[in-house]
Amino acid sequence: MPDPSVPATMRASVLLEQGVIEMQERPVPVAGPGEVLVRVASVGVCGSDVHYYRHGRIGDAVVDAPLVLGHEVSGTVVDVGSGVPETRVGERVAIDPQVPCRRCRHCLSGRFNLCREMRFYATPPVDGAFADYVTAPADFAHPVPGTMTDEAAALLEPLSVGLWSIHKAAIGPGDQVLVAGAGPIGAMVAQAARAAGAADVVVTDLVASRRERITSLGATRALHPVEDADAVAALEADSFVECSGATPALLQGLRAVRPGGSVVLVGMGADEAALPTAYLAAMEISLTGVFRYVDTWPRGIALAQAGMVELDALVTHRYPLEEVEAALDADSDPQCMKAVVQVS
Amino acid sequence: MPDPSVPATMRASVLLEQGVIEMQERPVPVAGPGEVLVRVASVGVCGSDVHYYRHGRIGDAVVDAPLVLGHEVSGTVVDVGSGVPETRVGERVAIDPQVPCRRCRHCLSGRFNLCREMRFYATPPVDGAFADYVTAPADFAHPVPGTMTDEAAALLEPLSVGLWSIHKAAIGPGDQVLVAGAGPIGAMVAQAARAAGAADVVVTDLVASRRERITSLGATRALHPVEDADAVAALEADSFVECSGATPALLQGLRAVRPGGSVVLVGMGADEAALPTAYLAAMEISLTGVFRYVDTWPRGIALAQAGMVELDALVTHRYPLEEVEAALDADSDPQCMKAVVQVS
Amino acid sequence: MPDPSVPATMRASVLLEQGVIEMQERPVPVAGPGEVLVRVASVGVCGSDVHYYRHGRIGDAVVDAPLVLGHEVSGTVVDVGSGVPETRVGERVAIDPQVPCRRCRHCLSGRFNLCREMRFYATPPVDGAFADYVTAPADFAHPVPGTMTDEAAALLEPLSVGLWSIHKAAIGPGDQVLVAGAGPIGAMVAQAARAAGAADVVVTDLVASRRERITSLGATRALHPVEDADAVAALEADSFVECSGATPALLQGLRAVRPGGSVVLVGMGADEAALPTAYLAAMEISLTGVFRYVDTWPRGIALAQAGMVELDALVTHRYPLEEVEAALDADSDPQCMKAVVQVS
Amino acid sequence: MPDPSVPATMRASVLLEQGVIEMQERPVPVAGPGEVLVRVASVGVCGSDVHYYRHGRIGDAVVDAPLVLGHEVSGTVVDVGSGVPETRVGERVAIDPQVPCRRCRHCLSGRFNLCREMRFYATPPVDGAFADYVTAPADFAHPVPGTMTDEAAALLEPLSVGLWSIHKAAIGPGDQVLVAGAGPIGAMVAQAARAAGAADVVVTDLVASRRERITSLGATRALHPVEDADAVAALEADSFVECSGATPALLQGLRAVRPGGSVVLVGMGADEAALPTAYLAAMEISLTGVFRYVDTWPRGIALAQAGMVELDALVTHRYPLEEVEAALDADSDPQCMKAVVQVS
Repeated sequence: MPDPSVPATMRASVLLEQGVIEMQERPVPVAGPGEVLVRVASVGVCGSDVHYYRHGRIGDAVVDAPLVLGHEVSGTVVDVGSGVPETRVGERVAIDPQVPCRRCRHCLSGRFNLCREMRFYATPPVDGAFADYVTAPADFAHPVPGTMTDEAAALLEPLSVGLWSIHKAAIGPGDQVLVAGAGPIGAMVAQAARAAGAADVVVTDLVASRRERITSLGATRALHPVEDADAVAALEADSFVECSGATPALLQGLRAVRPGGSVVLVGMGADEAALPTAYLAAMEISLTGVFRYVDTWPRGIALAQAGMVELDALVTHRYPLEEVEAALDADSDPQCMKAVVQVS
Repeated sequence: MPDPSVPATMRASVLLEQGVIEMQERPVPVAGPGEVLVRVASVGVCGSDVHYYRHGRIGDAVVDAPLVLGHEVSGTVVDVGSGVPETRVGERVAIDPQVPCRRCRHCLSGRFNLCREMRFYATPPVDGAFADYVTAPADFAHPVPGTMTDEAAALLEPLSVGLWSIHKAAIGPGDQVLVAGAGPIGAMVAQAARAAGAADVVVTDLVASRRERITSLGATRALHPVEDADAVAALEADSFVECSGATPALLQGLRAVRPGGSVVLVGMGADEAALPTAYLAAMEISLTGVFRYVDTWPRGIALAQAGMVELDALVTHRYPLEEVEAALDADSDPQCMKAVVQVS
Repeated sequence: MPDPSVPATMRASVLLEQGVIEMQERPVPVAGPGEVLVRVASVGVCGSDVHYYRHGRIGDAVVDAPLVLGHEVSGTVVDVGSGVPETRVGERVAIDPQVPCRRCRHCLSGRFNLCREMRFYATPPVDGAFADYVTAPADFAHPVPGTMTDEAAALLEPLSVGLWSIHKAAIGPGDQVLVAGAGPIGAMVAQAARAAGAADVVVTDLVASRRERITSLGATRALHPVEDADAVAALEADSFVECSGATPALLQGLRAVRPGGSVVLVGMGADEAALPTAYLAAMEISLTGVFRYVDTWPRGIALAQAGMVELDALVTHRYPLEEVEAALDADSDPQCMKAVVQVS
Repeated sequence: MPDPSVPATMRASVLLEQGVIEMQERPVPVAGPGEVLVRVASVGVCGSDVHYYRHGRIGDAVVDAPLVLGHEVSGTVVDVGSGVPETRVGERVAIDPQVPCRRCRHCLSGRFNLCREMRFYATPPVDGAFADYVTAPADFAHPVPGTMTDEAAALLEPLSVGLWSIHKAAIGPGDQVLVAGAGPIGAMVAQAARAAGAADVVVTDLVASRRERITSLGATRALHPVEDADAVAALEADSFVECSGATPALLQGLRAVRPGGSVVLVGMGADEAALPTAYLAAMEISLTGVFRYVDTWPRGIALAQAGMVELDALVTHRYPLEEVEAALDADSDPQCMKAVVQVS
C-alpha cells in the first residue's frame, strides 16, 4: 500500500529557458510497472545542471522545453508500481538516474550506459529531480544503509563517475595515478583510485585552496600544473584521469603516463584536441573516456559503508528547493566544492 | 667497489637431513654477471621451510643433500657483479627469490613464475637465505625505503603471495571476499584484498585467537567455519581465496561464491579434492591457483610505504641465526603468527 | 497486422512423463508485450531433451507436469506483441531460448545467463518448441539471412554453446586446443575454436566413426583417448574444452594443458570429480564451465554467413513433428550426429 | 660445431647516408652467449627501411653513421654462442628482430616491446640484415617448418605487426573490422583479423588495384574512402585498425566504430592529429597503438602452417643483395605489394 501521505501535486523547480528557473506545482508522477515512486531527500548539483542553466544546452542536447534539472538523488520509496514488492515502501534509496532500454546489444552485454535509447534525468526532454517526487526503475533505486546520510546517498552518483573511471583505467594495488582537476569529480576519482589500491594519487589544479582540500579527499599529493610542471613530467603514472576539461591538462597528463599505461577522459572540455598520436602509439598508451557508469551503486554503497570513501565531507553548500537558482550559482564561491539541494 | 668488510667465509644454517640443522662455515658467494651480493638482515620463516625441516620433502622436491632454508629475505647490497652499477652497494633491498630463465615463452609473456627452469631459494638443490650472505639477480633485489624495517622488507615475500592471489581473483573496489585460514598467508591475502578495494573481507579459522587477531590485519569479519557455517553459506562472495589447505574449507568456500565469481587456491593441502564440477560449471565459477608471483615487489613496497598494508605487526617471534631450529618450531606456539630470523 | 493464417490451435508434442510423448492440440500462444509469435520451422534435438525423455529429470529439474521439449529453434515471425514493430512479421528468425529477468545484477552486468529467475524453453515448468508456434522476446528472436537454412538457423543454439565455451577459454589466433568428445557439442566447440584462430584443434573420442567425421567439422586431428594417450599427454594445449561428460576425459585433458592454460567444462557428467587441485594450482591452470551463453546469436549468424562455420553438415537425421519420439531415440544410431524435427 | 663453411668476411649492403647505399665487405659477426649466427636467406623490405633510405631519419632516429637496413629476416643457423645447443646448427629460422634487456619492468611483465633499452635491427645504431650473416638471441630465432618458404618466414615480421594489432584491438569471432590502407601491413592486419574470427573485414584504400588485391588477402570488402564514404560511415565496426598513416582515414575510421569499440593506430603518419575527444569519450571508444609486437612468431608460424594466413602471395618483387637500392625503390611501381631481397 502506498504511503498515504503522498499528495496529488508537488513542487518542481523548472528551467524554463536559459537562466530562468520557476517553481511550479505539478502532479506527482505515478510509479509505472517495475518502478518506484520516491520522495526526494537530497539532490546534488552537478556541473551539467549548471551548464544547462547558464547555456541552455550541452552540445546537441538543447533545452527547448521546460526541464527539471537534478540527477544526483536520494530519497525514500513511497509507492511501487506493478511487479514491485510493497515491502519496498519506506526504504531509503539512492537512484541511478539511468533508464536504459534493457533490450539492445549494449544493454544485454553489460554496457547499458551506451544504450542508444537511454533516458536520463535532467537531460532534455527527461525531467530530473529538483522536485518533491520522482519515479525510477525499482532496480535502479538502490537501498542505502541507515548509517548513510541523505546527502552521501545523493553523492553516490558522482562517486559512480569516479568508480567507472578507475574501472576503465584498470587501476590496481600499488599504482601511481595522476588526476587533473581537484573539483568534485576529481575528488571522487581520487577517492575511487585510492579505494582501488592506488598508492600514489597525484592531483593537479591551478587553485591553491582546491589543491589543499583534495589532499584530505583521496590525493596523496597535489601539484600546480604550471609551477610544478617538472614534477608532473617526472611521473611515470600507471594511469591518468582527466577531470578538468582543459586541453593543456590533457596534453600534460598524456606525457606523464608510463609506456603501456592508460588515459581516461572524464572532464567535459573542447570537442576536439590535437593529440600526439605518434607518441601514444609508440608508447602503446591506451586512451578512452567514460559516459556515465554501469551498476556502480552497489559498489559505492559498500565502499562508503566500509569507510573507504568519504562523501559527506564534499558538501560545502546547502539550499532548500526554493533556492535552486542559488544552488546553481554556488560554484561562483571559490570555497564551493559541492552544493546540495535539500528537498525534504 | 665492494664493501671492504665482506669476509671470505660466512655462517650458514644448513638442513642436513629431515629434522637436523647444523651451522656451517661456508665461503661467501660471489656475485655473478647481473647479480648483487646481499648481506642478509631478516629472513621470515615460511610454512614450506617448516615442512622441509619436518618431512624432508614437499611433494617431488626432496632434500637429498644439505640445503639452506629461508626465502623471505631482506638485506643490504655489499657487492655487484659485472653489468650492475656500483652505486647499488649500500642499498637496502628486499629479494624476490625467483631466478627464472628469462628466455622461455612463460618468461617472455610476463608469467615467469611458471618458468620450467626456475631456480628458487630453499628449494632443492638451491640454497636459501639462513646465512650471512646471498646472491640475487640485481633486478630481483628491490630497493626499499628507509622507513621500512628489515623485517617488513622480508615480509614482502608473503605479501607478494597475497598480491598475486588477489590479482588472480580479480578483486575490485566494493567486492566481498572470503578467505579461509587466518595464518600469515591468510592475513596477507586479507590485507591485499582490502588494499584492492574489497569492502567486506570475511576470514574463517577454527582457532579463536587467530580469528581475533585477523580482524586487525585486513579482515572485516572473522567466522568459525563450523559454528558459523550458516553465515558462511549465506555469503555471495565475489571471490574466495583458500589459504588453509583444508579440503572442507575449500568445499565450503566454493559454495559461498556468487555465480560468476572466482576461487583461488593458495594453501597447500591434499593433492586431490573431490570438487562439485557440475555446480562449478552451472555457476560459471572460475577456479585457479597461484604459484609464487610475478613482479609484485614494487607494488608491495608502494602499498607498504603508503600505509595501505601492515607488515611489522605480523611478526610475533624473533630468533638469531644460531636458533633456526627454534624458529622452525615457533609455530608450535599458538600465539605465533610469524617468526623471523634476525641474521645481522 | 498478424499473419491472418495463424490458427486458434496448434499441435504440440508433449512429454507426459518419463518416456511418454503425446501429440496434443493446444491453443496457439499469444505474443505478450515485447514478444513475437513464431511459427516453428526446425527444432534440433539436444542431449538434454533426450535426458528428460529417458529419465524424467536433469538434476533438480524434474518433469512433474506435462512438458513440451525442444529448445534449438528457428521459424518465422507471424505476430508481434505491444511495443514490437509490425514490420517484423514475416521475418525468419533463430531464437535464443533464454528469458532472463533483465533486472538483476547478472542481467545488468552482461551475464544474464546466470540470472536466477531465468525461464528457459523445455526446462520444467517452461514449455519448449516441439510445437507449431512459440513466443519469444523480440530481441531474442534474431533475424537470419535468406541464405541460411531453417536447420542451420536452429543449430545456432548449439553453436552458441561452442562460441561461449571458446570465449570462456579465451582462445586466440595460433592456439592449440584440445576438445574431448566428438559429438555435436564437440563439433561446435571445434568449429568455434577454429573460427577464433586455433591453429591446432585436437579432438578425442572413443568411437572411430565420430573421430573420422570430426576432422571435417573443425578438428585438425582426432585421437583415441586410450590408444593415443601418449600423444594426448604430449600436448601443451593452450585450452582444453571438456564436452564428453566423462571424468577420465576430464582428468586426461587437465594434464594436457600448458602452464597458465585454461579448462572449460561443457559436457554434463558426474556431479563431482576428484581433481588434482595441487597440480592445477602449481600450473596456474584456470578451470571454469559454461552455463548456456550470452548474446552469441549475432556472432554465430555472422560466422555462418561468412562461411567460417558449417552447420548444415551436422544434420544426419530428420523427423516430422509426429515422430518426436523417434527423433529422441535417433542417437541410438551410431551414425547419428544431429537429429532435427521439421515442424513446418 | 659451427658450419665449417662460414667464411671470415661477408657482404653487407650499407646505407652510408640519405640515399646512398654501398656494398661493403665486413667481418662475419660472432654469436655471443645465448646467441645464434644465422646465414640470411630472405629479407623483406619495410616502409621504415625505405624511409631511412630516402630521408635519413625517422623522427628522432637519425642515420648519422653507416647503417645496414633490413629487419624482416629468415635464414639458417650456422653457429651458436655459449649456452645454446649445437643441435640448432642447420635449423631454418625466422628472426624476431628485437633485443630487449630482459630485466626491466616491461620485460618482466610481458611487454618487452616497450623496453627502454631495446636494440632493434636497422634502427640506428644497430645494423640490420641486408647482409650475408646476422646474429640474434637464440630464443628470438624461431624454427620454421620445412613447408614454409624463406620468403614466407621473413614475412612473419609484418604478420607479427598484424597479430599484435588485432590482439590490441581485441578482435573476436564474428566481429566487423575496418582497416584503413591496403598495403602490406593492411593485408597482414586483415588476414590476422580474419584468422581471429572477424566475419567482415572492410578495407579502405584510394588505389583501385590495391582494393582489388586485398580481397584475396583477408578483406571481405574493399571500399574507396571518398567515393564509398557513406558505406564506411554506415559501419558499426567492433574495431578499426589504422594502417594508412593518413589523418583523414583516422578521422573517418573513428566515426565508423560502434560505441564501446576499439581503434588501433598502426600506420606511421603525422605526429599529431586533431581528434574528436568528446565523441571518443561519449562513445567510450578506446584508442591505442602498436609498437612492434610481443612473442608473435610462434602464433604466426602456427597460423601459416595451418593455412590460416597467406604470406607468399604478398611478394611481388624480388632482388639480389646487390640490388638493395632497387628493392628500396620498388614501391614506386604501383603493382608492388612487397619486395624481398634474396640474400642466399
